Amino acid sequence: MYEVKVKDNLFIAHSLNDEFFGPAKNLHGATYVIDLIISSKELSEKNVVIDIGLASRLLKECIDVYNYKNLDEIESLKGFITTTEFLACQLTNDFIEKLKDELSNMSKIYSVKMILNESHVASASYEKKI
Amino acid sequence: MYEVKVKDNLFIAHSLNDEFFGPAKNLHGATYVIDLIISSKELSEKNVVIDIGLASRLLKECIDVYNYKNLDEIESLKGFITTTEFLACQLTNDFIEKLKDELSNMSKIYSVKMILNESHVASASYEKKI
Amino acid sequence: MYEVKVKDNLFIAHSLNDEFFGPAKNLHGATYVIDLIISSKELSEKNVVIDIGLASRLLKECIDVYNYKNLDEIESLKGFITTTEFLACQLTNDFIEKLKDELSNMSKIYSVKMILNESHVASASYEKKI
Amino acid sequence: MYEVKVKDNLFIAHSLNDEFFGPAKNLHGATYVIDLIISSKELSEKNVVIDIGLASRLLKECIDVYNYKNLDEIESLKGFITTTEFLACQLTNDFIEKLKDELSNMSKIYSVKMILNESHVASASYEKKI
Amino acid sequence: MYEVKVKDNLFIAHSLNDEFFGPAKNLHGATYVIDLIISSKELSEKNVVIDIGLASRLLKECIDVYNYKNLDEIESLKGFITTTEFLACQLTNDFIEKLKDELSNMSKIYSVKMILNESHVASASYEKKI
Amino acid sequence: MYEVKVKDNLFIAHSLNDEFFGPAKNLHGATYVIDLIISSKELSEKNVVIDIGLASRLLKECIDVYNYKNLDEIESLKGFITTTEFLACQLTNDFIEKLKDELSNMSKIYSVKMILNESHVASASYEKKI
Repeated sequence: MYEVKVKDNLFIAHSLNDEFFGPAKNLHGATYVIDLIISSKELSEKNVVIDIGLASRLLKECIDVYNYKNLDEIESLKGFITTTEFLACQLTNDFIEKLKDELSNMSKIYSVKMILNESHVASASYEKKI
Repeated sequence: MYEVKVKDNLFIAHSLNDEFFGPAKNLHGATYVIDLIISSKELSEKNVVIDIGLASRLLKECIDVYNYKNLDEIESLKGFITTTEFLACQLTNDFIEKLKDELSNMSKIYSVKMILNESHVASASYEKKI
Repeated sequence: MYEVKVKDNLFIAHSLNDEFFGPAKNLHGATYVIDLIISSKELSEKNVVIDIGLASRLLKECIDVYNYKNLDEIESLKGFITTTEFLACQLTNDFIEKLKDELSNMSKIYSVKMILNESHVASASYEKKI
Repeated sequence: MYEVKVKDNLFIAHSLNDEFFGPAKNLHGATYVIDLIISSKELSEKNVVIDIGLASRLLKECIDVYNYKNLDEIESLKGFITTTEFLACQLTNDFIEKLKDELSNMSKIYSVKMILNESHVASASYEKKI
Repeated sequence: MYEVKVKDNLFIAHSLNDEFFGPAKNLHGATYVIDLIISSKELSEKNVVIDIGLASRLLKECIDVYNYKNLDEIESLKGFITTTEFLACQLTNDFIEKLKDELSNMSKIYSVKMILNESHVASASYEKKI
Repeated sequence: MYEVKVKDNLFIAHSLNDEFFGPAKNLHGATYVIDLIISSKELSEKNVVIDIGLASRLLKECIDVYNYKNLDEIESLKGFITTTEFLACQLTNDFIEKLKDELSNMSKIYSVKMILNESHVASASYEKKI
């Protein structure tokens, strides 16, 4: 199994609107340093899992939907508790949709995973098999 | 598959009492920077894998059994070679026991993994499916 | 010259209210992973720069003033552009004030520095000689 | 499942001789910081996945074939596009061959993985089950 | 004293043409992960050391002169031993020249430093006071 | 000012024999991941601060005096509280002595610094001007 990883980051404000989250119930924010990991069982004829420039560009497009924003005011996220786990899933799904639009053939892609590192001591991730 | 990760660390003395380990046969010590990774196939109603505060507290309790101690003098470890692999397994099992005591329902937890980073160039880990 | 360093982190929302900052003019947020560095020309009789437990506790107290908050709504910050540089200075000054209250004698402390890491590619710091 | 990880690094020159790679078509170079990860379902009688000294020595031998060289001039690589993915696969296979020569019994080794970190924002890996 | 840091990276081939360097005498290559650190005794009216977008763009321009190239074939480097120390100095001086062209007033800039991280265990840096 | 940095690590047991240190009064241990930083105002004729191979070898020799040992039983440390600050100073002085024995001319070396990273959240350092 092959994997490639690229990194980028995302700055957002949000509140986790439930007593369960203690002080994180307040409006605050976070930097998510994102590891995007794409895996494949075989390489393309160029000996790559995917064009790394394409992967980086699509990741940036996914990030730009939320970057420098208050998630509490984004229509599509209304009613959701925007935990790190939830955002990892959301961004992974967003990325896969974009990838399907770009690639004529997804058959070589095995899975897509995003790790959202929110501090030096905590992260969450979501991985989806294609 | 979702994962969450939290970090903590553990300071111990020990000796690896076998010629196989060369100079590590002597009484020496190590810092283990621990990555605890908990995975789940679906999120709770709060959109989390697990209450991260609970996971951090239970990890701290597991660490406290060994922290600032000489493992050679801990009764339950007598006769064992306390390699990093062995300790990763021990701490993972300790954590799972505590988790079972705290959670009414473990059915959403898929696996628990601990990575013990012992220097900038070496680590060992153990992962157990629930 | 001796130094000790401890790490902690801070989650905030804010907006940088000036066209100069482009999209960061919007309400968004950040995690600051903070390196607190205290330097001294000589050690105490316990062979330390400072009681590390005390330093960590005072750092946590400084962080708690802003943690899980929207800086735009904190009275003492009204009218300031809360850049990473500005916050590094603010937190360093806050820390020094607390340290003066705790230590009978600051004469051995040479300087206090805080590095605020805001992503995997950017940070800002402020250092003040005592 | 147990894993052990050791780190080393490799300095090479190469060119990726295809328009697909843009400026990387030119002769340039890279440092690959390598994470070698060996996994096993059970430990040896010494409570280890593998003798870490042996693993480090074999990794060094694999690296030495390419270290401080121009890959474009290595006979066995002629005609291949030496992407990070390709090199991860090559080094993993080289390592497994050496391991088979050294170990009388490979039955406890479950898989070998190499992650080649080529910068602070990109890496590629290859994992092979034994 | 304030500092800001931004990171980028550079891929080059070169040879260190002197017996002193052992195997590094051969044509090989390296990734330099670069930390650019700019310090200032006071902030601008926008509460920054420097426009971080400008600093990142100028750093990228400095890198682009050498990126994806064989340093042995760059006219201005002919006859120089292109050690990491030498390149840190070269890039720092290149950056300062560009900065002078862009800023009407350099009086607030105290120093510029570049750290070139060439592996997980080695780096070199150069710092110049303005 | 130029700097070079190399990394290595040290595994020790010790006890900090004073109530001041709480649980660290017990026999325990630590890994110190060591950053050795050597600075110089000008480069040698080979364009280096120092032969990096020499620096790494001398650092290893300094480490070997304490590595895989119980510091409480080392004669020259008897009666000292072996805090991280103290060890950073000890190792820096040991290194400078070795360097003086090896180099005919220390006049280009400006300072030697060692940072002892003892966990993911704490470190101490000592720097000495030559």
